[in-house]
Amino acid sequence: MAGKPINTFNKERKELNNTVMEYGGLSMKRFFSLDSQVYRKGKLSEKTKELIGLVSSLVLRCDDCIKYHTIQCYEKGITDNELEEAISIGLIVGGSITIPHIRKIFKLWKELKRNAKL
Amino acid sequence: MAGKPINTFNKERKELNNTVMEYGGLSMKRFFSLDSQVYRKGKLSEKTKELIGLVSSLVLRCDDCIKYHTIQCYEKGITDNELEEAISIGLIVGGSITIPHIRKIFKLWKELKRNAKL
Amino acid sequence: MAGKPINTFNKERKELNNTVMEYGGLSMKRFFSLDSQVYRKGKLSEKTKELIGLVSSLVLRCDDCIKYHTIQCYEKGITDNELEEAISIGLIVGGSITIPHIRKIFKLWKELKRNAKL
Amino acid sequence: MAGKPINTFNKERKELNNTVMEYGGLSMKRFFSLDSQVYRKGKLSEKTKELIGLVSSLVLRCDDCIKYHTIQCYEKGITDNELEEAISIGLIVGGSITIPHIRKIFKLWKELKRNAKL
Amino acid sequence: MAGKPINTFNKERKELNNTVMEYGGLSMKRFFSLDSQVYRKGKLSEKTKELIGLVSSLVLRCDDCIKYHTIQCYEKGITDNELEEAISIGLIVGGSITIPHIRKIFKLWKELKRNAKL
Amino acid sequence: MAGKPINTFNKERKELNNTVMEYGGLSMKRFFSLDSQVYRKGKLSEKTKELIGLVSSLVLRCDDCIKYHTIQCYEKGITDNELEEAISIGLIVGGSITIPHIRKIFKLWKELKRNAKL
Repeated sequence: MAGKPINTFNKERKELNNTVMEYGGLSMKRFFSLDSQVYRKGKLSEKTKELIGLVSSLVLRCDDCIKYHTIQCYEKGITDNELEEAISIGLIVGGSITIPHIRKIFKLWKELKRNAKL
Repeated sequence: MAGKPINTFNKERKELNNTVMEYGGLSMKRFFSLDSQVYRKGKLSEKTKELIGLVSSLVLRCDDCIKYHTIQCYEKGITDNELEEAISIGLIVGGSITIPHIRKIFKLWKELKRNAKL
Repeated sequence: MAGKPINTFNKERKELNNTVMEYGGLSMKRFFSLDSQVYRKGKLSEKTKELIGLVSSLVLRCDDCIKYHTIQCYEKGITDNELEEAISIGLIVGGSITIPHIRKIFKLWKELKRNAKL
Repeated sequence: MAGKPINTFNKERKELNNTVMEYGGLSMKRFFSLDSQVYRKGKLSEKTKELIGLVSSLVLRCDDCIKYHTIQCYEKGITDNELEEAISIGLIVGGSITIPHIRKIFKLWKELKRNAKL
Repeated sequence: MAGKPINTFNKERKELNNTVMEYGGLSMKRFFSLDSQVYRKGKLSEKTKELIGLVSSLVLRCDDCIKYHTIQCYEKGITDNELEEAISIGLIVGGSITIPHIRKIFKLWKELKRNAKL
Repeated sequence: MAGKPINTFNKERKELNNTVMEYGGLSMKRFFSLDSQVYRKGKLSEKTKELIGLVSSLVLRCDDCIKYHTIQCYEKGITDNELEEAISIGLIVGGSITIPHIRKIFKLWKELKRNAKL
C-alpha cells in the first residue's frame, strides 16, 4: 500500500530515537526536548513554524528532516499553494542543489494526498 | 546617528547591485528578478515569507542576507516575539554556529527599534 | 545490464521533474529554465561549463547533481585526464568529505565507458 | 548476520578506492596519503584524533566518513561515554540536522558491540 | 597593546549575549545553557572537548566560534603541537576553504602567547 | 590609490601563510603544496582551472578564496564574459546566498581593470 513507506519511516525513526536515548546523556536528552518545543504554537502558528522548519531543512539539504517536516506540514493542513510558495523561497535561497530534495518533497506530498483518499 | 549603518548598508547594497547588473547577463538578471518575486504576497503573507527567508539565511549563515531580511521583517511589522520564535527554530536546526549571527540580528533589531523612536 | 542504473536514474529524474512541474508555480518553472540556460555554449564551451557544474556539485556534495553532471561530462566528450584534473581541484578545495562522492564519480565514469563498448 | 553490513561497507570502500586510484593522478594520491597521516598517533592520541575526525564528519554530515570514523573509534577502544560526550558537542555545534546521522552512529555502535560478543 | 583585540572580542561577545538574552525566550536560554554544559569535563577532558569544538567550528568555518575555542584551547593549556595536529585534521577533512580560518587561528595563537609574556 | 586593497590583501595573505608555516607540520605543508599543484596547467588550461576554483569557492562562500581566485582569473586573462558565464553557474547552483559574494567579485574585477589602466 502507498502509505507503507511513510509508516516505515516513522517506525524506524522512533526505533532509532530509542537507540539514541539509550546512549544519550542529559545534554542530548535536553536538546531533543528543545527540538520539540520550538515547533509548538506560540505567537507564530504551528503551520508557520513547520514551514520555517521545512525550508531550513531544505536549504541545509537534510533528507530525513525534510521528510519529517513535509509530513508535519501535511498534517497541520498546509495547502498545495502554501507549500509551493515556501519551497520556492528555499529554491531561490539555496539554488539548484536543493532540486533533488524538492523532487522528493513533492513526491511525498502526492503520496500523502493519495493515502488520504484511501 | 544610530540609523547610519543601516542606511550605509542599503546604499552600498544598491551600488554593488548596479555593478553586478553592469556585468551580469540575462540569466543573472532573471535570477535577481526571481529573487524579488518569491517574497511577494501570495497564499502566504509577506511576513511569513520574510521569516522563512530570514531563518533560511540564518541556518546558511549568510550575514548580508540575514541583515537584509531582518530589516524587511522589521518593516513588515513582525513583532519581537514572532522574531524570537522564528530564530529559535533556526538555532535548534542549525546549532551553536548560528549564535554569532543571532547576536547580530538582535543587535540590529534593537537599532531598528531605537531609530524608529527618533 | 550495466547501463540500467543510468537509464533508471534518467527516467526517475524525469518523472520526478514532472511531479515538481505539476505543483510548481511560475518562479519555480523559471528557475528550472535558468538552470538549463547557464550550461549552454557561450564564450565558455559546454565542456568547461559542465566541469564547473560538476565540481560545484562535488564541493557542495549533492549526489544527484554530481551524477547528472558526470553523465553530461561524458556525453560532451570530456577525457579521463580532464575529469581527473577538475576533480582534484574539488578534492583540494572541499577536503576529504568529498571522497565518498569522488568514489561514485569514478565508478559511474567506468560504467559509462563500459556501456559505450557494448 | 549482524556483522555483514560493516564488512560490506569496508569491502565496497576498498573497491571504490581502487577505482579512484586507477584514475587518480599524483595530487589525488598524495591527498589520500595525507588523509591517513593526520590520524596517526602524535602528541594527540589516536583516540582523540578519531573523535575529532568523527565529530568533524558529523557536523559536515558526511555519512560515509561518519561510518568510517565510528568503526575506527570502536576499534581504538573508545568507550560508550566518551563517544556520547563527543557526539553531544557535535549535536550542539551542528544542530538538529545532525540528528539523523547521530541515529546512525548509535545504531552502528550497537551493532559493533553486538558483533564483538559473537 | 597586543591584548586589546582579544579583550574587545570577549567584551563585545558578552554585550551581544546580553542583547540575545534580553529578547531570547526559554528555548533559546536553555540552548545557551546546553552550549556550556557539553564542554565541561566528563569522561573526556576539557582539553579534548575544546579541540573537538575548535575543529568542528573550523570545518564549519564559523570565525567567531573558532576565535572563542582558540582562546579556550590556549587557556586549558593545549600545546603548539596538539593544536597543530588537531588543525591538520580539520584542514584535511574540510579542504583548502579552511585555510583562511587556519591563518587566523595561528595569528591569534601567536598573540595569545605574546601577551602571556608581557 | 585603487590598487591598495589588493596589494594589502596579497601582503597580509603572505604574512599569515608565514605564520601558518611557522607552526605547521609536515602534513600541513604538503597540503599547501598540493593546493598550488592542482591549479597548474595540465590537460585543462590554467584559465579553466582558475574558473573551477573560483566557482567552487563561490558556492562554498569563502571570501578570501574568492578574492584570490578572482585576482588569478584576471591575471590569466579571463574576459568579462567568461567570468560572467562561470559566475552565473555558481549563482544557479548555489542560490541567492552567493549574491553578496558575487557583488564583491564584480567590485574587485572593476578595480582590477581600473588599476590596469593607471
